[in-house]
Amino acid sequence: MNIGIYGYGNLGRGVESAIAQNPDMRLVAVFTRRAPESLSIATPGAQVVSAAQVEQWKDKIDVMIICGGSATDLPAMTPALAKHFCVVDSYDNHSSIPAHFAAVDSAAKAGGKVALISCGWDPGMFSLNRLYAGALLPEGNDYTFWGRGVSQGHSDAIRRIPGVVDARQYTVPVEEALEQVRSGQNPELTARQKHKRECYVVAQEGADLEAIRQAIVTMPAYFAPYDTTVEFITLEEMRKNHAQLPHGGSVIRTGVTGKDGCHKQVIEYKLTLDSNPEFTGSALVAYARGVYRKAAKGETGCVSVFDFSPAEISPLSREQMLSHML
Amino acid sequence: MNIGIYGYGNLGRGVESAIAQNPDMRLVAVFTRRAPESLSIATPGAQVVSAAQVEQWKDKIDVMIICGGSATDLPAMTPALAKHFCVVDSYDNHSSIPAHFAAVDSAAKAGGKVALISCGWDPGMFSLNRLYAGALLPEGNDYTFWGRGVSQGHSDAIRRIPGVVDARQYTVPVEEALEQVRSGQNPELTARQKHKRECYVVAQEGADLEAIRQAIVTMPAYFAPYDTTVEFITLEEMRKNHAQLPHGGSVIRTGVTGKDGCHKQVIEYKLTLDSNPEFTGSALVAYARGVYRKAAKGETGCVSVFDFSPAEISPLSREQMLSHML
Repeated sequence: MNIGIYGYGNLGRGVESAIAQNPDMRLVAVFTRRAPESLSIATPGAQVVSAAQVEQWKDKIDVMIICGGSATDLPAMTPALAKHFCVVDSYDNHSSIPAHFAAVDSAAKAGGKVALISCGWDPGMFSLNRLYAGALLPEGNDYTFWGRGVSQGHSDAIRRIPGVVDARQYTVPVEEALEQVRSGQNPELTARQKHKRECYVVAQEGADLEAIRQAIVTMPAYFAPYDTTVEFITLEEMRKNHAQLPHGGSVIRTGVTGKDGCHKQVIEYKLTLDSNPEFTGSALVAYARGVYRKAAKGETGCVSVFDFSPAEISPLSREQMLSHML
Repeated sequence: MNIGIYGYGNLGRGVESAIAQNPDMRLVAVFTRRAPESLSIATPGAQVVSAAQVEQWKDKIDVMIICGGSATDLPAMTPALAKHFCVVDSYDNHSSIPAHFAAVDSAAKAGGKVALISCGWDPGMFSLNRLYAGALLPEGNDYTFWGRGVSQGHSDAIRRIPGVVDARQYTVPVEEALEQVRSGQNPELTARQKHKRECYVVAQEGADLEAIRQAIVTMPAYFAPYDTTVEFITLEEMRKNHAQLPHGGSVIRTGVTGKDGCHKQVIEYKLTLDSNPEFTGSALVAYARGVYRKAAKGETGCVSVFDFSPAEISPLSREQMLSHML
């Protein structure tokens, strides 16, 4: 399979390293809106190409993995590219997924292509586990916990406060809430009871630290509904201790079965990730295999992770699966 | 969907209670090799029918869920029934799955039916999670831990020892091994390092308890390779404290991504089940929905859980999935 990467930030680099782990795939080109000569990529033999020239690569790329941001890039980028390429994106604005799906679906159908949106881990593997667990345990409750991990959106929100040089925000699940859920108690939990937020902030010299702290902890939606701690650190400490992008979390369904629901059944899917973008990249790459196979069967249009069988994304043969994995 | 249950032991009853939780399904008949009048089932309106008359129900049942044992029942039962019905079974003899698959496949193709084998949680949901995790993290190690839970096979093995009236064996994962694996240390673990075995035994009055204990702990394959504890209890204690069939376990994959594998990524799928047969039954019922849908599309032959997309087994509409689950 010949793979293209469209956009080369953290996620694009994660996709690149995942492609190198899959012998049935080859990275042929990285497309960038920056000056191509300014980019240095890790894959020998792959080209760096201006995004403006992407249509010239229509016949050389089997699946294009789009590594743009959900806020402004993907709503335009994915439909535009889906006219010419089979694509995979990681669109993660949950409330706008149906609209994005519809736009991408008509573009992909017009181009005769397969387009997978909202791949990754949430949306993606977490969604898929919510669906499986709900199908297996129709009477039950779903819980999703995120973290401990860096939220880019919350870190960015802090960086926009006057006087802030850099910031890193960790989303942390509340351990007591997790244990309550795992034990099948079916608690009703507020946002504050489920997660807390830890902020590490580098301030400008002479900045009013208390004003920054107040601006953070009172910020609606982002921080006000949570117990939020703010710690001011130096730029050196930021670089030394907070350069990584770990994340993870748990999707838990607690259900009941049997006479009068007498038996508790708990399903948990848990991720502990040293690198969020590299794991997301790994998911996009595995599903690119599925997109390639759907296209080879003549399918077209927009799909989600719900539409792929496990066999479709696996590199194993049917014989290997039956003998070793079942 | 009209569902039949073939065999009415613990698993058959688990399937029956799962059907009652799914409004798109109806149990129409339970087939038994015992005298039908000796069976009392929980579903109003469903019939109890002699297994000998099963072929008369060809046109009244959409999917037959076969609840026989893997050792002797299913190898003959599933191919025989797959000629006349779409079927689901829970065949769990891992090493003979390819042979069972081949036999069921030719029967199902001859009959124009869809047959799903080896559904449940292991094989089943655990297999599927091993496949997903391996596709996402191609460089890594798989670990499967079972328990704490009752192993029927090990309990039966103890019951065959002279002087034993009843027995219950719990498979227990070794907590230190689990923690080592979860932390991404990639240990190589022997059988003894992964699981221990707890046995509760009711002996005949006057039996040689030390001889029974020795017969258990030295039993090849079943107990000798493990740290095994044996506790003798009364029949009353057995009935009071060991009447349930809890089980569960974890499938864990620890992989690496990034430059020189610098980042650890851990995926864990964990089940904590009060009732093993009811959870297995819930899985069989969810996948019966998928079998029905594959048959409606004109597919035939044998399939595994690897061949179903999550959407195929879910009762939700595409709109519900995109809006609420993705």
